[in-house]
Amino acid sequence: MPGGFLANGVACGIKKSGKLDLALFYSQGKAKAAAMFTTNKILAAHIKIDKLYMKKNNGYYAVLVNSGNANCFTGKEGVKDAEATTSNVAGNLKVQKEEVLVASTGIIGKRISVEKINKALPGLVQGLSRPGINRAKRAILTTDKQVKEITVRFPLGKQEVTLCGIAKGAGMIAPDMATMLVFLFTDARITQGALRSALKIAVENSFNCITVDGCMSTNDTVLILANGQAQNTLIDTKQNFKVFLEALKSVTEELAKMIVHGAEGATKFIRITVNEARDFHEAKRAALYIANSNLFKTAIYGENPNFGRIAAAVGASKIQTKEEDLKIGVSPLNKKEIDVEVWLKRGKACARVYTSDLTPEYIKINAAYN
Amino acid sequence: MPGGFLANGVACGIKKSGKLDLALFYSQGKAKAAAMFTTNKILAAHIKIDKLYMKKNNGYYAVLVNSGNANCFTGKEGVKDAEATTSNVAGNLKVQKEEVLVASTGIIGKRISVEKINKALPGLVQGLSRPGINRAKRAILTTDKQVKEITVRFPLGKQEVTLCGIAKGAGMIAPDMATMLVFLFTDARITQGALRSALKIAVENSFNCITVDGCMSTNDTVLILANGQAQNTLIDTKQNFKVFLEALKSVTEELAKMIVHGAEGATKFIRITVNEARDFHEAKRAALYIANSNLFKTAIYGENPNFGRIAAAVGASKIQTKEEDLKIGVSPLNKKEIDVEVWLKRGKACARVYTSDLTPEYIKINAAYN
Repeated sequence: MPGGFLANGVACGIKKSGKLDLALFYSQGKAKAAAMFTTNKILAAHIKIDKLYMKKNNGYYAVLVNSGNANCFTGKEGVKDAEATTSNVAGNLKVQKEEVLVASTGIIGKRISVEKINKALPGLVQGLSRPGINRAKRAILTTDKQVKEITVRFPLGKQEVTLCGIAKGAGMIAPDMATMLVFLFTDARITQGALRSALKIAVENSFNCITVDGCMSTNDTVLILANGQAQNTLIDTKQNFKVFLEALKSVTEELAKMIVHGAEGATKFIRITVNEARDFHEAKRAALYIANSNLFKTAIYGENPNFGRIAAAVGASKIQTKEEDLKIGVSPLNKKEIDVEVWLKRGKACARVYTSDLTPEYIKINAAYN
Repeated sequence: MPGGFLANGVACGIKKSGKLDLALFYSQGKAKAAAMFTTNKILAAHIKIDKLYMKKNNGYYAVLVNSGNANCFTGKEGVKDAEATTSNVAGNLKVQKEEVLVASTGIIGKRISVEKINKALPGLVQGLSRPGINRAKRAILTTDKQVKEITVRFPLGKQEVTLCGIAKGAGMIAPDMATMLVFLFTDARITQGALRSALKIAVENSFNCITVDGCMSTNDTVLILANGQAQNTLIDTKQNFKVFLEALKSVTEELAKMIVHGAEGATKFIRITVNEARDFHEAKRAALYIANSNLFKTAIYGENPNFGRIAAAVGASKIQTKEEDLKIGVSPLNKKEIDVEVWLKRGKACARVYTSDLTPEYIKINAAYN
């Protein structure tokens, strides 16, 4: 963890399996925050609370995260439940409730047990520590096969800045929003504007470029906390911005790839690059149509060179490509990592999207998950 | 078959299995035609030829259909191949090549064997008969589990009109276009304008309201031939139109449902009705987002009451519905036919969409199909 950050994870009983399901991230000094949320019109309760608290923008000490229950489609009661948990965390930490952010992931449509969370909070707070991140990063998972964490350090002036990211996400992953739960922590000293701007750029090029099943979640949240404890020369949108952005981009891109590597039931990691598009938007659109084609994804699973399905997906994207201009290349199908390259012969822009194959195991997981 | 129509089907060797793969439909008198094609930007060769021939609108005697090869993404050679088959059929039937329409379905990206088709043509033509429809309707299938055919008869003035439809389609079925191959034959006497107009309305309410996997095909074609042999009082857009339209709607809706019933790997037939929308377009959009959600489809396969996924899909459709207004009802999951009802509380419009569940068998079929 970057300087000044502590974490912990416990099992509070939301998951029937008894696995870790409640995480707390804590900054010893007030941290600035920036976030991106799903663009789904049905919003999880935690997003409503976070948006409310982040309007004041007074700085934040903690983020409480539960897994096993999305606290979504739970009405006004669900929002009250989320608010109650921030109050309780605040009470335990001796801070204001508006200084505590919250996130949930899991089943949609069931109320969360505030009682279970309340009972677990004192122990959760007492156990906060730097190595506690190892429990916290497990406590945010649902169907994930593995934990997803990456830390980078980079010099800034005479100081070293640390940036750490952890992620949860394995299904209901689709682009055009901040997909899944991602928490980023940095001890960088940075202005609010630079933090927000860097996050937006990084998300657009990472989490918004992956898809597992084309299903947009109601809970997707990418949150970054910056507590300034590295005491570096200030980062703003004019100075030192690029070095911070590059670090953030590398962390978010790695986490995005980890999510696809760990996608529900996946046996293949697929990189789709669309070249020679008019602009980035067009290239990404074509790439996402391929990435979200069930027929393409099952073909890759079956190591079946049915590349006509790639052409069909590009055509379905409604991009005005001509059949005679469209070129398609695919790397050997018997490998774990597959590269798909498409050339549209329309311009010079390109985009890269990551996805996984569609397998019987994905169906098994999602036919049973409840 | 309606009066004046004959058909036949043979195995010409395109399918390695030796199954029937070449069908011919023939009208003893010149027939009017109307068609709707996929809106995919990559078009099968047969669609290019049909569009060309239908510009002249001189009337048609025959439709040649092959299965096992889509003749798509095959470049100029593919178009020449399709044209050559119409020439050869025309030669055998002693008509003009522009009076012969053509359709293909199967694997994308491989050239078709004109030679195999040519060898089979004399026998195909010689064997044309009224009961030949039973071979023809099998010859247009690929992964379909069963044939799809329906015939209706209705009085018009003192005459009886017959309308017969046959369809092929099991995967790569997505809406907003004329999905799959559908051939409709009628002996009705009808104006060109009325025929075109009725087809458009009927397709919008049938084939454009079904989805199997959200994958848009390059070959989708719905074609109707009307040869006038019933000698009924003329149908135009002002008189007798409604009775013809209702018959056409009932045939296309039944065929659309048959396609969903026979969807690749499907174990459930799902009817999704979205009520209280602002307009039909909005209701259909919400219904299709649900119908195309892999998570929803796997939940139905698993008989898993994870209805939050329905709310998530409605929210993902970006319709401005409020969480507190959204109501969801689902019939018992242990049945073969599932009803999903959604109320948006935004207006009075509704739409119904049909789909199937997503199963390991779908993946098995499509991982192997080549």
